[in-house]
Amino acid sequence: MSREEELKEFILHGYIQYIPHVSIDCAIFGYHERQMKVLLIKHKFLNGWCLPGGYIKRTENLVEAANRNVKERTGIDGLFLQQFKTFGDPNRVKLDGFDVEKWFAVTGIRITRDNWLVDQTISVGFYAITDFVSSVPQPDILADDCAWFDIHEIPPLEFDHDEMVKEALHTMRVQLYHYPIGYSLLPEKFTLAEIHSLYETLLGKKLDISNFPKKLIALGLLRKTTEKRSIGAHRSPHLYSFDKPSYENALKEGLVLS
Amino acid sequence: MSREEELKEFILHGYIQYIPHVSIDCAIFGYHERQMKVLLIKHKFLNGWCLPGGYIKRTENLVEAANRNVKERTGIDGLFLQQFKTFGDPNRVKLDGFDVEKWFAVTGIRITRDNWLVDQTISVGFYAITDFVSSVPQPDILADDCAWFDIHEIPPLEFDHDEMVKEALHTMRVQLYHYPIGYSLLPEKFTLAEIHSLYETLLGKKLDISNFPKKLIALGLLRKTTEKRSIGAHRSPHLYSFDKPSYENALKEGLVLS
Repeated sequence: MSREEELKEFILHGYIQYIPHVSIDCAIFGYHERQMKVLLIKHKFLNGWCLPGGYIKRTENLVEAANRNVKERTGIDGLFLQQFKTFGDPNRVKLDGFDVEKWFAVTGIRITRDNWLVDQTISVGFYAITDFVSSVPQPDILADDCAWFDIHEIPPLEFDHDEMVKEALHTMRVQLYHYPIGYSLLPEKFTLAEIHSLYETLLGKKLDISNFPKKLIALGLLRKTTEKRSIGAHRSPHLYSFDKPSYENALKEGLVLS
Repeated sequence: MSREEELKEFILHGYIQYIPHVSIDCAIFGYHERQMKVLLIKHKFLNGWCLPGGYIKRTENLVEAANRNVKERTGIDGLFLQQFKTFGDPNRVKLDGFDVEKWFAVTGIRITRDNWLVDQTISVGFYAITDFVSSVPQPDILADDCAWFDIHEIPPLEFDHDEMVKEALHTMRVQLYHYPIGYSLLPEKFTLAEIHSLYETLLGKKLDISNFPKKLIALGLLRKTTEKRSIGAHRSPHLYSFDKPSYENALKEGLVLS
């Protein structure tokens, strides 16, 4: 099947393979050395940017659908994916920005009111965090562009995606003390300065440099190793690691803080 | 329209008023004096119990749908409702326990494979907490019974509802330190013993009586008032209240603990 035929089949009969009325949207955050970004996509028939997303195959569970989507956009398989909220409001998808002529030019199909893609849709939001340096953004079949945007320079997004980003950030920040979110963003052993930078960047606020590590150690999230790293004359800070058993126990018990 | 006609209309043409493929399920927890319960429903055509739930009207957002459902089952309007997770797995609803003959006896309708109620459904889970003494459980049109079960004596539930209860508890316990969950379960001013009992019961574990209030005060959740309550000779413990501005700020900022 050619790409055009595939697209036509998806638009006209996609409901056979995918569940109608339900989509997923992914807030993929990128971190690298004090910078935080989010991955956005520009569809050919929309004027603005939005979060990447898609439909759920009838053979997939929700995490599998989100993972497939994240893998297609970033090239990375098996990222830590976390549901943050499901969005369902009769007015959540306003089609004001939807350009029917552009859609026709791209797809060659005049979409009708009874098409499965037009009806009301509820969307399950997932967030993920990765090192943005290691990923290569890939637009999907209907998109012109896919790119990282600094978290402080996000343009107004299509649909209810401004709210999605806000809610994803909110949940990630609450969960930062309960889930092993930092694991993949730091080397196995790291300095207090490195984890301090990571937490300040993800939380979007200044954290007291002396209280912050004490709290993480008191909560049982952080473990001091016997090793040091030499970073210059008279400077060799201790190295730390995440307390993996404590995290795993917390995930099982449901609480780090208790 | 009679109740029978209403039911027939819902089964045959409910997709006009409700969004197909998406439901909500509600884990309604009840608290009263060291006891924690969950509200369960027994459908006429299922052998076991399950969480109350239903479909989303096309004019409703998700919280409105959940609130309508909770109000219908408990008689209480405007409970603090929190989404905890959305469940979507091709195998989540096994119809092994679904008794076709009982269904026919109740509804008078032979349901077909292409009926909108039979197709794959994704369910958005909400949890709520209320004082179970103040609510009167009401079965819905297709249920025989609706009742409170002690959290330690829940029977095996239908569908994936065992997992739903587990996930609802997990999320409630994580959020107990971030959201004003306790508000409606204690009087405006309460003793440390009362909030200690509440937190122990909701978390399902023992909490050190001397450290626990210190932590809540340190986190800015609790405020000591100047008042005392006389509860006997030589016993008049200080009264406390929730630190509402701190909670509201935390909800805005996304974090109590930071």
